[in-house]
Formats: sequence, structure tokens, C-alpha cells
Amino acid sequence: MKPVRLAILGLGTVGGGVLELLQINAAEIKRRTGREIQITHVGTRRPRPDLNLDPSIQQSEDLLHIARQSDVDVVIEVMGGIHPAKEVLLEAIKNGKHIVTANKALLAEHGNELFKAADDNNVQIAYEAAVAGGIPIIKVIREGLAANRIDWVAGIINGTGNFIMTEMREKGRAFADVLKEAQELGYAEADPTFDVEGIDAAHKLAMLASIAFGMPLQFSKVYTEGISKITAQDVKYAEEFGYRIKHLGIARRAETGIELRVHPTLIPEEELLANVNGVKNAVLVQSNAVGPTLYYGAGAGAGPTASAVVADIIDIVRDISYTEDGAGTIPHFAFEALSDLPILSREEMTTGYYIRVNAEDETGVLADVTTILSRAGISIDAIMQQTRLKDLIPIVILTDPIKESIMDAALAQIQALPAIHGEIVRIRLESLEI
Amino acid sequence: MKPVRLAILGLGTVGGGVLELLQINAAEIKRRTGREIQITHVGTRRPRPDLNLDPSIQQSEDLLHIARQSDVDVVIEVMGGIHPAKEVLLEAIKNGKHIVTANKALLAEHGNELFKAADDNNVQIAYEAAVAGGIPIIKVIREGLAANRIDWVAGIINGTGNFIMTEMREKGRAFADVLKEAQELGYAEADPTFDVEGIDAAHKLAMLASIAFGMPLQFSKVYTEGISKITAQDVKYAEEFGYRIKHLGIARRAETGIELRVHPTLIPEEELLANVNGVKNAVLVQSNAVGPTLYYGAGAGAGPTASAVVADIIDIVRDISYTEDGAGTIPHFAFEALSDLPILSREEMTTGYYIRVNAEDETGVLADVTTILSRAGISIDAIMQQTRLKDLIPIVILTDPIKESIMDAALAQIQALPAIHGEIVRIRLESLEI
Repeated sequence: MKPVRLAILGLGTVGGGVLELLQINAAEIKRRTGREIQITHVGTRRPRPDLNLDPSIQQSEDLLHIARQSDVDVVIEVMGGIHPAKEVLLEAIKNGKHIVTANKALLAEHGNELFKAADDNNVQIAYEAAVAGGIPIIKVIREGLAANRIDWVAGIINGTGNFIMTEMREKGRAFADVLKEAQELGYAEADPTFDVEGIDAAHKLAMLASIAFGMPLQFSKVYTEGISKITAQDVKYAEEFGYRIKHLGIARRAETGIELRVHPTLIPEEELLANVNGVKNAVLVQSNAVGPTLYYGAGAGAGPTASAVVADIIDIVRDISYTEDGAGTIPHFAFEALSDLPILSREEMTTGYYIRVNAEDETGVLADVTTILSRAGISIDAIMQQTRLKDLIPIVILTDPIKESIMDAALAQIQALPAIHGEIVRIRLESLEI
Repeated sequence: MKPVRLAILGLGTVGGGVLELLQINAAEIKRRTGREIQITHVGTRRPRPDLNLDPSIQQSEDLLHIARQSDVDVVIEVMGGIHPAKEVLLEAIKNGKHIVTANKALLAEHGNELFKAADDNNVQIAYEAAVAGGIPIIKVIREGLAANRIDWVAGIINGTGNFIMTEMREKGRAFADVLKEAQELGYAEADPTFDVEGIDAAHKLAMLASIAFGMPLQFSKVYTEGISKITAQDVKYAEEFGYRIKHLGIARRAETGIELRVHPTLIPEEELLANVNGVKNAVLVQSNAVGPTLYYGAGAGAGPTASAVVADIIDIVRDISYTEDGAGTIPHFAFEALSDLPILSREEMTTGYYIRVNAEDETGVLADVTTILSRAGISIDAIMQQTRLKDLIPIVILTDPIKESIMDAALAQIQALPAIHGEIVRIRLESLEI
């Protein structure tokens, strides 16, 4: 099959991220789709020599011109803003191009018109990146939870706001103080209104509500309240009651209609949603068959947004590669071409360890144990001598990751020490860090 | 378009759940697919009069016979076990039926053969329900994260095991004691080996690894260790170090190959995964573009499993309804038919409240405030008088959910009390309960 041809409009943070991701993961993506993806056009007013674009890619400032080119199957809109994005996309749709966009403001405010144009012209508009960044929440609600009647959706869908609420709680800081830091860190814009007054979250909530309940976009009807009036005092009092204040977007099916609201919200501190910190996003969906499910991850940034944009591209590539043989578009094992990666034996695996030995209260046993570990090249992360149990003293050691065969050998030596009684306990330990 | 016709094999907990869900959510599902779904055959050895099956549905014990019927498009296998499920599915595949199955043991052990048969016969095997119940993790990894190179997957993928680990930590109970309770509650089988020795988790991990890395199923190479040897003592010591012990399935891309392992694991207590409690499941995926993302929900039970089975059915219905017009299979707003549900005004919305008033230290003000709330029919959930700030005493009240217009009126009355100074603070409160 011939390659699927893309035009990328916008070479800012997200556009650059998409180009980079298509390049870095090219082999992986090819294995998943079984089909070549080729960038034929890039539209931007500010060329970026730093991206070292392939010279075969045509660059132009004339976005409407690109929208009409016959060597474009999918237009990737990552320029942002309402105009000229809207006009360019309508032109591309009229010319039969599929659209992938990360533009939440455009969709929330003009989505009804754009989706209608797409339906009229038999093309798709994919917009996973427009809500909750890299979390595939659009796919989850439209497809994964499709068997359910959705009762409500509640989400932390603005990373800047969540960063501010997290800092206020963890460090007792004032709103204005944290906002200034967020701006210095690049999390918040110079004009932070969209984030801190909830407009960005309201854009996303309008979209979540439409796909949860199957209704047109109604951004103007979202009740929207920001976090700028939240004080450190109320954050502290809320905590004394066992609650945390989060800036939530909530879409709820009530008896008489749908509630669409964005506002600071006290939620019980033991809820997973209350423990989503920093710039991370999370969406909790309550539905009638599966009950509550939660989706967590990065809601912004070049990599996470590009992850969603490129997933949409892959969906479209799989879709337009559909053949009527009935075999569907998604390979059973996710990849068209399977790999023969070797599976490691237990001895070859690497993990951290919790080790417990029960020792006689004898001077030198701790030294013996740590010497054996150290000679084996195993670094000790923490060590704790516990209260004597019967005649023995439990010694607990946490180690950094090490190959299991090395740990096997070290533990055999420790087990052989005369001062060690009973079988050594070993439990693996993972920091789950990146 | 004519209806898509299903044969359901197995009328146990899951089979009954699927039938019930297709019935309860029939209108919602029809709106999503735009196409009728019809059950033509049910295969079971134990008929269930309690389900009040439509008399037009043909019931039979002869599963191979059903697998060959021409009025079946999709076979739903929810009977469990390896035999005769395998033979019946191979026969259905040979006869051009698509398959939806929740059978993790069958797929983990014979999936390579079944998927090959499906590919040879141009049919799909959908298996969302086979891993992590109602969490759409198969879809997330195969599609939502398709732009990423996945580095590792770590999951709590056995609810029984997680229930036991949670109880041991929260109540300091012993393994055997909690296992007995889990059996009484119906969470664990009379023979709990599959759950507590990690075999069930290893089945699911083998599938997760195949779709994360694009490789054949290799269940026999999963290093598997159960939780039966974990003592309350080690759970306690781990906690002293700031860790919790969870029974994890981990698939990791190491330098020299793939690690596939199921074992008890210490993880830092602040990680979301460490806070997934009871019978719930969660899967954390680390990938190179989006970074860490987490998916949480019910991993078992009739409703959650049926949610996944029916989502697979909807996927297949959308897929075989594909037309070459290019418009794709998923409606932009998730539903083929949009609803005109009214959006409520703020005054019509219902939520709980955190109210803070600053009062002069005057006897009676607390009584005045609570009387106003009580007369308005607003129930107080908690009340706390805080330390005096300057000349005023902050009084904080948490209320049960109430319509906003009622709260507006009550707060206007409170604001008018002479002993109240400054503007009343009101922040909404949601328990996020079902």
C-alpha cells in the first residue's frame, strides 16, 4: 500500500514534538501499522532549521494552499488559536482530508460546525490530544466504555491549576506566590486567565460531556469558577476535615438535565483523584456496568501531546488501510510484525530487594551481612534493626536494583553464616520510577 | 443494515451479566452503534429460566453446532476453561465467526494458535475482558498508546490477591486468616491456587506483554511467585520504610531481553499504584512519549466483565458496519444519534458545600447560622470552630448535597447576620461516591 501522507500545520512545541516522535518511534509505528507514514507538507510562518526537516518536505506559509494539495491525506493542526485554524481546517475538510487536531479552544467553541462539515464530507476529525493530553480518554469513553451508560465524569484536566493546588497544600503557600513560580517554570502563561479561571478546563469538559452523554458541544453553558480566590487558610481547614481541594471539571447526569461545571472542589483525601499531584491530569468516570474507572497521566507537554496526536494518526492510518476481509484494523497482538525478543530467565532479571534475616544478638553479624552484600556489588539503600522477637533480632535491608543471580549468590553466603537463623526472606522492590 | 447476530456460550455469572447488560443498556448501545444487536443462540448445559430469555433465542447444549450456524456473526465465549472452549472457538473461526472471549487461561495458553486461526480466516478475536476486567487496558495499549515505545507495564491484575494484601496491611491480619474471609466473600475460589500463587496474574501478564512489545504469548516463561508466604511482620516492616507490598505483574524491556514476572513487590507508599486497595485492579504503563499513565477500575465481577465483553461486541459491530466512505467507524460525538438533554443552570445544580464564615465571638452566632441552614433543609455533615484570627473566629461547615439556589438563599441570610464579617467563603464538595 502507498504511504499515508501528512501535512503538519504549526511548528511550535507540539508540532516539533509530533515531528520528533514520528522520527524517534518510526520503526515501532511502522511495526504497528504495517504502512509507511510520510510527511509531505509543513505549514508555518516561522521555519525551524533546528528540526532538520527532510528536504523533500514542502514548507509554506500558505496554509489554505496546503489544505488543497492532492498529496495530503491527513492534516495535522497543531498551530492553536481559532483563526486561521478554523478556516484552514474547513478548507481541508472540503478537500477530503482527514483532520487530527490538538486545538481544544477551537473544538469546544466551533466543534459542532467542524464535525458537521467532516460528516458531510466523509472525513474524520480526531482530537485525542485536545483533552487531558497523553491520556487516551477520548478513546476510552467513545470505545472502551461504550457498553455503559455514563453517570458522571470528574477530572483534573488542567495541569497548571493542579500544580498550584498541590503546592498550596503541600507547602502552605499562597495562590499568587505559586502562580508566579508556575509562570517561571513555564507551566503558566504570562496571562494565566485561561488556566486559573477555568476556561481551559471548561473547554475540555464540554468535549468530555459531549462524548459521555452523546450531545452537541455546549461550552457556553459550562458553569466556570477558577482557583484564584482559594486561600491557604481554606486549603488547611479542608485538610483538617480529611479533604483536599482540587480544581475539577464535572459533567453529571442529574434527574432533570446535565450539570456542566468547573470549580474548586473538596474531595476525600483517600480518593485516588485527591492524590493526583503536580501538573498531572486524571479523569474519573462513573458508569453503570463497570462502576468507577480512573485514567491518569501527563495532560500537557510536547511528548504527551504528540503521543495523542500520533495515536490519532495511527488510528486513521489503520482505518484507511481497512480492507473488507473482515479481519479488522487492529492487529491481535497490537503489531503487524511480531518480534522475537528473548524472555529473560529469573537469574537474568534485575530488581531491588527487601531482605530480612533473623540474627542472633551477636556482635559482628551486621558487619558480616553488609560485607557480603558490598563485596557482591549490591548497594544498600536502607537498613533497620527491628525489635528482638523471641531470641532473634530481625535485620531488614533494602537494596538498589541488582541482577537476581548476584543476589542469589550473596544470599547463599549470608544464609550460611552461623549467626543467621531460619530462612532469609526476600521480597522484590520496585521504585516504579522512570 | 441488518442486525448483528450473536451466539452466547455460557450462562454463568459473566454470561448472565452480558445478557443483562445488553438488555439494560440497549437504548444507549443502539445510539452508539446505530445498528441492532440480536442474540440468536445461547449455548449452555445449565439453562437459566431466571434470565427470562426471549423465546426467539435458540438454546442448545451442542456448542459445536452453534459454532456452525449461519445466523451467527459473533460468538461470545464466556464459559471459561480450556476444553471444550478451544475446540468450539476453532470451529467458529473456521466458520467465519468473529470471537469475543473473556477466557484468560485459554488465550494465555493457546492464544498463539487461536489468533493464527483467526488471521487465516479473516476474523477477529476480541479479548478486552480477559485482562483487568472492566478497565479497557487492551484498547489503551493497542491503540491509545500506539505512538509510544513501551518500556514497562506494572499492574495489580488480580483482585483477590490485592484484597488480601490490602487487608493484611490495613488490619495487620495474617494471610491465612484473610484468605478464609476472601473465600467466604466469594472473592476467592475454594481452591485459591490460581489467585494466590499468581497463575491468574501470569496469564494476564503474558497478554499485556505481547501487546506492549509485539511478541507471541509466552506464558510458560513468566516467573511467577505468589503471596502465600508474605507475613504480617514483613508488611509492617515495609510500611516502616515507607513502602507497601503489592502483588504485581511486571513486563519490562531490559537491555538484553524482556522480563516477565509476577511477585509480591514493595512499592513507595506515595505511588498511586500503592493506593489501589481492595479487589480493584490498576495498570501503570511507562512509555517513551507520554511517560507514566495509569488505568484503574474493577478487575472482576459480572458487571465490569460484561462491560468489556460488550465493548468488544460494539467494536466489532462498528467494524463490520464500516463503509468505504472514509468517515471511519467511531462517531465524532461517540453516538450516532445525539440527544438534546437540557444543560442545567448553576442554580439548578446539586452539590455539597464547604462554608466558612468569620464571626465575632458572640454567643448565639453558631446557633443563628445552623438554624438558617436547618430551616432551608440543608443538612450539616461536620462543623468546626477554628482558632481565632485577629478579632474573628472562623466557623467552617461541611454540608450534604443541596440545590445551589437553596444554598444561595441561605447564605444571603447568613451574610446579613450582624455578627458575620467579610464575605462568606463557599467551596463545593463532592464525595465522588457512587
